Amino acid sequence: MIETLQAAQELAERAARQAGEVAKMNFDRVANVIEKDIYGDMVTDVDHEAERIICEAISEVFPNHEIHSEERGHNGKKSDWLWMIDPLDGTNNYGIGFPVFSVSITLIYRSEPVLGVIYEPMVDRLFVASQAKGASCNLIPMHVKSKKQIQKGTIGWIQGHQVQNEENAVRLRQHLDVHFKRVMRLWAPTLQWCMLAKGDIDGIVLYNSEGDDLYSGILMVKEAGAIVIDFEGKEFSGMCTEPYLIACHPDHREYFLNVVREGLSR
Amino acid sequence: MIETLQAAQELAERAARQAGEVAKMNFDRVANVIEKDIYGDMVTDVDHEAERIICEAISEVFPNHEIHSEERGHNGKKSDWLWMIDPLDGTNNYGIGFPVFSVSITLIYRSEPVLGVIYEPMVDRLFVASQAKGASCNLIPMHVKSKKQIQKGTIGWIQGHQVQNEENAVRLRQHLDVHFKRVMRLWAPTLQWCMLAKGDIDGIVLYNSEGDDLYSGILMVKEAGAIVIDFEGKEFSGMCTEPYLIACHPDHREYFLNVVREGLSR
Repeated sequence: MIETLQAAQELAERAARQAGEVAKMNFDRVANVIEKDIYGDMVTDVDHEAERIICEAISEVFPNHEIHSEERGHNGKKSDWLWMIDPLDGTNNYGIGFPVFSVSITLIYRSEPVLGVIYEPMVDRLFVASQAKGASCNLIPMHVKSKKQIQKGTIGWIQGHQVQNEENAVRLRQHLDVHFKRVMRLWAPTLQWCMLAKGDIDGIVLYNSEGDDLYSGILMVKEAGAIVIDFEGKEFSGMCTEPYLIACHPDHREYFLNVVREGLSR
Repeated sequence: MIETLQAAQELAERAARQAGEVAKMNFDRVANVIEKDIYGDMVTDVDHEAERIICEAISEVFPNHEIHSEERGHNGKKSDWLWMIDPLDGTNNYGIGFPVFSVSITLIYRSEPVLGVIYEPMVDRLFVASQAKGASCNLIPMHVKSKKQIQKGTIGWIQGHQVQNEENAVRLRQHLDVHFKRVMRLWAPTLQWCMLAKGDIDGIVLYNSEGDDLYSGILMVKEAGAIVIDFEGKEFSGMCTEPYLIACHPDHREYFLNVVREGLSR
C-alpha cells in the first residue's frame, strides 16, 4: 500500500501540473471576442483535454483502479482504489477570465480519502495532502490558524448547484454574512479548502455540496489540523452524498456551531 | 491638452506596470509563515514602494499637477489636473495570497475623470480608458454586454469600509443576492469595473464607496458603453463624496433600478 501511495502521489502531481498548464495556456483567450457566448465550447474543450491527460496518466500506472471524473463519468472498473477527478474546478470563473480555478485529484481507498492533490496553475501553487502525513503548499507544510477574534475572520461558503435560493440556505448565508467580517464565495471550492488549510481564511461552511472536487479539500484541511464536523457537531469522515459541513480550527468549534444553529433556526 | 493627455497616458501605463511588477514579485511571500500577523507590514512596504514609483513618475513629467494617493495623501499643489492613485487595490486579497488585486491610476481634469489606467499584474492585463476614446484591455477594445436574461447575470457589489453591516446595505445586498445568479464581492473594486467593461459580468451596485480607486473604474465602464446612474436613475458624472451607484448595459436600466428600489424599501 505504501508503494501504491507513493506512485499515486507522483503521478497525481505530474498530471495535475500538466492539466493545469493546458488551462493556463488557454486562459482568457476569448476575453475580447465581442460575441462571447462561444466561450462555453472553449471551456468544455479545456475541461476535456485536462481530463484526458489525468485519466490516461492514471490508467497507465494503475489500469485496474476505478476512476470517476466530471465529464467521462465512471470507467467501469471495480477496485478498492477510487480516483475522483475535477479537471477544472471553477469553470465559471475560467469562462469569464477570472483567474481563480484549479485542477483537483483525489485518491480514495475503501471509501476513505487518502491523497488529495490540488493545482492552481495561474500562480503555480501545488497543494498536496496525504493521510496522516500532513498537507503542504509547494512542499511547505500548512497549518490552519486560530484567530483571536473569530468574528473578525473570513470564511468560505460553498453550496451545491441544486441549492440555488433554497430558503434555509439563504437564511444561513445571510446570518453568516453579518457574523463574520467577510464571507467569500469563490465558485471554486477546492481553492477555499486550500486557503483554510494554508491559514489564509478561518473556516468553511458547506451546504449540501458533493462532487468530484470535495474530498481532496476535506483531506487538505484535516491534514492541516482543522476539524470537519456536521451541523450537529459530529465529526465527519469517509464520504457522503448530502453533506452539510463546518470546517475550522478546533478552537472555533463552538462559535461556528452556534452561529450555524442560530442561522438555521431564525 | 491633447499633448498632456498623450504624455499622461504613456507615463501612467509605464508606472502602473512597474508598480504592479513590484507587487507581483512579492506576492504570497509570507504565505507559509505560520505567524502570519506580520503580513500587515509587508503589504504596507509593497504599497509604499508601488506608490513611490507612480508618484515620482508623475512628478517628473508633470511637476505642477496635483496628486492624491492612498498613503501619501495630497502633494500640496494646486492645478486643473489631479491624479488619484491607488497603488494596490485589493490589499486584503494580496495579504492573504489571493491573486486578485490591481494598480489604479486616474487623471482628472477640472473634476472630470479623463484617463483611467488599471493594471492587473498576476495576469498581465492592462486596462485603459480615455474620455471619448473608448476603453481597452491589452489594446483590444472592450464593450459591455447585454444579456438575454439579466436575472441570470453576475453582478459586482462594492461597499465602503464605513458601511459594514449597516441595515439598509445588508437588506439591499440580500435582495440582490436572490435576484441575480451570482453577486461577486471581490474586495478589489477596480477589477470589478474592468470585468463589467470587458463584458465578463453584467452590472455593479455600489453602496457609499468613494476613494482613490473609484474614478478609473467609472470611466472604464462608461467608455465601454455602460450607463452609470444613482439609485434614483439620474446619470452620474464628475466626482462625489458619498456615491450610491448602479452601472450596467443601457438595456438593463429598469431591471436594476427596480431591484435596487425593492431591496431598499423592504
